[in-house]
Amino acid sequence: MGGDHGPSVTVPAALRFLAEHPAAHLLLVGREDALRPLLGDQAGNPRLRVVHAEEVVGGHESPSLALRNKKDSSMRVAINLVKAGEADACLSAGNTGALMAISRFVLKMLPGIDRPAICVPLPTTQGHTHMLDLGANVDCGPEHLFQFGVMGAMLVEAMEHKERPTVGILNIGEEEIKGNEVVKAAADLLRASGLNFIGNVEGDGIYQGEADIIVCDGFVGNVALKASEGLAQMLGSGLKEEFKRNWLSKLAALVAMPVLNRVKKRFDHRQYNGAVLLGLKGISVKSHGSADVLAFSCAIARAYDAAENRVLERISARMAQLTPAAAGES
Amino acid sequence: MGGDHGPSVTVPAALRFLAEHPAAHLLLVGREDALRPLLGDQAGNPRLRVVHAEEVVGGHESPSLALRNKKDSSMRVAINLVKAGEADACLSAGNTGALMAISRFVLKMLPGIDRPAICVPLPTTQGHTHMLDLGANVDCGPEHLFQFGVMGAMLVEAMEHKERPTVGILNIGEEEIKGNEVVKAAADLLRASGLNFIGNVEGDGIYQGEADIIVCDGFVGNVALKASEGLAQMLGSGLKEEFKRNWLSKLAALVAMPVLNRVKKRFDHRQYNGAVLLGLKGISVKSHGSADVLAFSCAIARAYDAAENRVLERISARMAQLTPAAAGES
Repeated sequence: MGGDHGPSVTVPAALRFLAEHPAAHLLLVGREDALRPLLGDQAGNPRLRVVHAEEVVGGHESPSLALRNKKDSSMRVAINLVKAGEADACLSAGNTGALMAISRFVLKMLPGIDRPAICVPLPTTQGHTHMLDLGANVDCGPEHLFQFGVMGAMLVEAMEHKERPTVGILNIGEEEIKGNEVVKAAADLLRASGLNFIGNVEGDGIYQGEADIIVCDGFVGNVALKASEGLAQMLGSGLKEEFKRNWLSKLAALVAMPVLNRVKKRFDHRQYNGAVLLGLKGISVKSHGSADVLAFSCAIARAYDAAENRVLERISARMAQLTPAAAGES
Repeated sequence: MGGDHGPSVTVPAALRFLAEHPAAHLLLVGREDALRPLLGDQAGNPRLRVVHAEEVVGGHESPSLALRNKKDSSMRVAINLVKAGEADACLSAGNTGALMAISRFVLKMLPGIDRPAICVPLPTTQGHTHMLDLGANVDCGPEHLFQFGVMGAMLVEAMEHKERPTVGILNIGEEEIKGNEVVKAAADLLRASGLNFIGNVEGDGIYQGEADIIVCDGFVGNVALKASEGLAQMLGSGLKEEFKRNWLSKLAALVAMPVLNRVKKRFDHRQYNGAVLLGLKGISVKSHGSADVLAFSCAIARAYDAAENRVLERISARMAQLTPAAAGES
């Protein structure tokens, strides 16, 4: 029900996902009267079920109020289905804070993990990287950053079948004082963890693909991600304006369009949609609120892949192995 | 002497600056044997003087060692000239940490300012903004962020002749927990300061020009700036690659080139070169190490403008006015 466009995007995206994933089953959670009319000839698809939920969490609603008062919201019902084992993962394009609060309350944390983290893939010159936390936690301690590193590494191992992916920690490069105390202490924990820790990554290293996983505080991560989005938008609209300036540039635009479209496709943020809330005893994924059908179907696919590849089992196993060591270090 | 290219860039940039600023005088500080041969027909220019300094601070040298041991480095001698009142500002493309350490040691802080901050202009969809701190300080307290706000506002008032420029604080937008405690407390101080404080700015707001001055911790600011640089590089090289892919796209590149060059020029980072180290009793400016002649001459012009427009006097006056009030607030 959530996101900027609601069911007009989420339902077609769900149908698209189903067509592309012949083994998948989907539960659409929300107001039946809003969802059913959009199903068309897929209404009878045996891999598709509508689960009615009366309420909707608003985009600007207080997460704590949504948690307390909206027991029959689509978000709450969907997360309950994960808790009950009736769904392997849930996905929402709605209120991030509410999704986080309800997911955490209902699903609880995995053993050894103190806080959930938002993990997103980002494009790089060489392919892509994963960064976490992107905004679930501000004021992280070293042990939290350490846990983010473990969770990110296990996600990449599981979902991308990559052995010993590289883990870096976001830092600044001034020679004398490299980063703050928290980052230094977290780096020590990661260095002793047995993960493939490569040390510091600076801001520009994110997009140079210096590490498969980049660990940071949610405040820093959120700012870096949004600053990048803002810059890309500015450059994109600058490009558009200049190509529209006069008939000559409009002609140039026609000629250059196929190339520009290839560039656009290559870095298309829609294919990177779907932020996994890692650290919970259940898979909960957040889509960008402004997602279109392609973007939302990519996010469904990410939730599906996370469940299919048993990301949580892998995190639990590694944490069980590491926690005594980590406790000894700290 | 500093930067990736040394005098081969800094001297031609100095000559270019002199030609464009008929009232300006320049002191070139460094090894005479390296500088003099590059002066050409300007060797006798009465507005240009070479000040010999025997040593050079290396790009990767420890700032504290450079401060202690290199008393006759070009950097130290240049800053001494500012201290002695023989120069109104100094500029270096060298080791940032060393420039900061030496500037702080020699020039000392302005009354009421605890720490220096690196302030840079950044392009926006509407023009440009100024952001600080970009990496001089990690682990800032609320009073430091508050001081950054005052310094940034006074810089913009003085250099851009803008009355009551808007000041925002970088934050993240999750509804419930907006930012960390430090940012919240700093926002309270800024709100009570009499500055034109507009509240929170998220990462994408930087490039949307939401505020004339954006205040942040040096860690966050450095990461945001470098992440932006990295993203721009990635998009730029992606564009280049796609235009070079085959003869058709190469043809398209030819047609599109004038438009692409206009976009490039519009957001050209070289015109934004020159980070002012604010808060010191003297103007010290850092150029990007990789600056070319155009970029370095822009940075000289920024140092010149900062001195010409009496940025420091304005900061001092405002701090004198605010400090009792700010102390009362905290």
